[in-house]
Amino acid sequence: MRLATLNIGGKAHLGWVTDRWIIDIPSLAERIWGEREQEYRTILSLSLDTLLRADGIAPLREAINALDKAVGGLDYAHVRFPDLAYDPETAPLLHPILAPSKIIAIGLNYRDHCEEQGLEPPEHPTVFAKFPSALLRPRGVIEWETSLTKQVDYEAELAVIIGRVARKVKASEAYYYVFGYTAANDVSARDLQFGDKQWVRGKSLDTFCPLGPWVVTQDEIGDPMNLGIRCLVNGEVRQESNTGNMIFDVPHLIEFLSQAFTLLPGDIILTGTPAGVGIFRDPPLLLQDGDTVTVEIEKIGALTNTCREA
Amino acid sequence: MRLATLNIGGKAHLGWVTDRWIIDIPSLAERIWGEREQEYRTILSLSLDTLLRADGIAPLREAINALDKAVGGLDYAHVRFPDLAYDPETAPLLHPILAPSKIIAIGLNYRDHCEEQGLEPPEHPTVFAKFPSALLRPRGVIEWETSLTKQVDYEAELAVIIGRVARKVKASEAYYYVFGYTAANDVSARDLQFGDKQWVRGKSLDTFCPLGPWVVTQDEIGDPMNLGIRCLVNGEVRQESNTGNMIFDVPHLIEFLSQAFTLLPGDIILTGTPAGVGIFRDPPLLLQDGDTVTVEIEKIGALTNTCREA
Repeated sequence: MRLATLNIGGKAHLGWVTDRWIIDIPSLAERIWGEREQEYRTILSLSLDTLLRADGIAPLREAINALDKAVGGLDYAHVRFPDLAYDPETAPLLHPILAPSKIIAIGLNYRDHCEEQGLEPPEHPTVFAKFPSALLRPRGVIEWETSLTKQVDYEAELAVIIGRVARKVKASEAYYYVFGYTAANDVSARDLQFGDKQWVRGKSLDTFCPLGPWVVTQDEIGDPMNLGIRCLVNGEVRQESNTGNMIFDVPHLIEFLSQAFTLLPGDIILTGTPAGVGIFRDPPLLLQDGDTVTVEIEKIGALTNTCREA
Repeated sequence: MRLATLNIGGKAHLGWVTDRWIIDIPSLAERIWGEREQEYRTILSLSLDTLLRADGIAPLREAINALDKAVGGLDYAHVRFPDLAYDPETAPLLHPILAPSKIIAIGLNYRDHCEEQGLEPPEHPTVFAKFPSALLRPRGVIEWETSLTKQVDYEAELAVIIGRVARKVKASEAYYYVFGYTAANDVSARDLQFGDKQWVRGKSLDTFCPLGPWVVTQDEIGDPMNLGIRCLVNGEVRQESNTGNMIFDVPHLIEFLSQAFTLLPGDIILTGTPAGVGIFRDPPLLLQDGDTVTVEIEKIGALTNTCREA
């Protein structure tokens, strides 16, 4: 499944992502079922966050399957219900996870990104935090004030969405706890990050965590450790790598993290960025007012945001 | 007001804290009003988190006042309803904020704590994060495995509970955004904290953020910058100071933090710890299996937890 979160009249609606359209799921369920199938309609009216927290993955699949059958194929729902089908390019997308209990980020997790900083690859994952108030929707505006930071940088990252409570999980069983994947931009105010030494403030300015465009479930991704990942600024490729180049892969990250703290449904793990960030280029090439920055991940899609400096 | 969160049959109930008792508020409201006053009963059935997020401080005060009047003085409710009155020493307390969107912690915010580490006081607040999954209730057990950490330390801290959405707030207006205060123990795995360089993992092990025993509202605290603060381990005083010794006071912290990111209702700011932590003693005096650790703050109360090493 590919599931988006749509802003429909100020309310978060689940969205079903096809190759061409995003279907407004709760509205479709009401249109198809009217007052019938109340249980399914209730499930499908919940946000992805709420469903994950309620361990609602199995009920969600069941309700989706029922709707798929009732509508004669969700992937063709745009034909009968064109008013419920949104073009991905203009759909009112929100960040697919609205309010995670935490965003865990991993630093220095691609060998070439360590090299560009002249650092040895770490012996274990480098963990830092981004505050959830930094989350930004696809096509939202990354904003900063020059009075606070003058060095804003991009970092393309694969984001893991946790689906089940995970505590002291072994790498061999880690995928059971993953709901799916999306793209993230770990936007970083380098002057604050390095000046503070603790990275969280420079990593957590409002709008500094674009996430999306939607979540692709574990079963549909298959192996997340072989996905092309790129970052483009104004159409120019700045980062280009493959998730297979991670030093610590997703199962090992989940094992490592869940030894220390419980991962909760909806929690987000940002798995680190490859080489090519702006600050370590010679000369540095940082984000500027008016820039358009896109994180692209194979099998997931493109997360595009613009930049505004005030 | 002093408001606790009680675990009544697995559900979070608001608790009214008097000098001798904690009153189960939603149960009392039902007892007094039956099916009447549904609006007040609904408000009083919500958790403190939910009320804060819904900007429910004014409705909460109104509902509490109505209940106070209906019952003839909430502070005497234990006389007529002894089964709804809990002894604070044995009450089923939960951490008063159950699921904050973030816990922001400040390092090096007492001059003497900088001195004991041989560090200059910082020029601006040092910000780090604790993940909310670390929260622990009063009298809960701080637990760790020696395979993960062998250096667990205490840090007594004043915790600020944000009451209103705060963005780019001036220090002079900061108190308007504060709901109240409680005590916290910023428990720290020193080997992980210093080994990782980024502090969040060593600060966020499950159970490493005891919080409570209850929240005392801003109006009842008055000036939070003149409160005695102590940490005791097995009854022995290890830290003893006054919040007046902070380098950056609460209004300046709120101004500084809210320039970078939005503070949301229910968010928690841990304001730093005074001198006397275990790791910088000679010889170091860290927490051990079986220890009892208490954070005491004037006008708030005592937060006590025991330690278990596995």
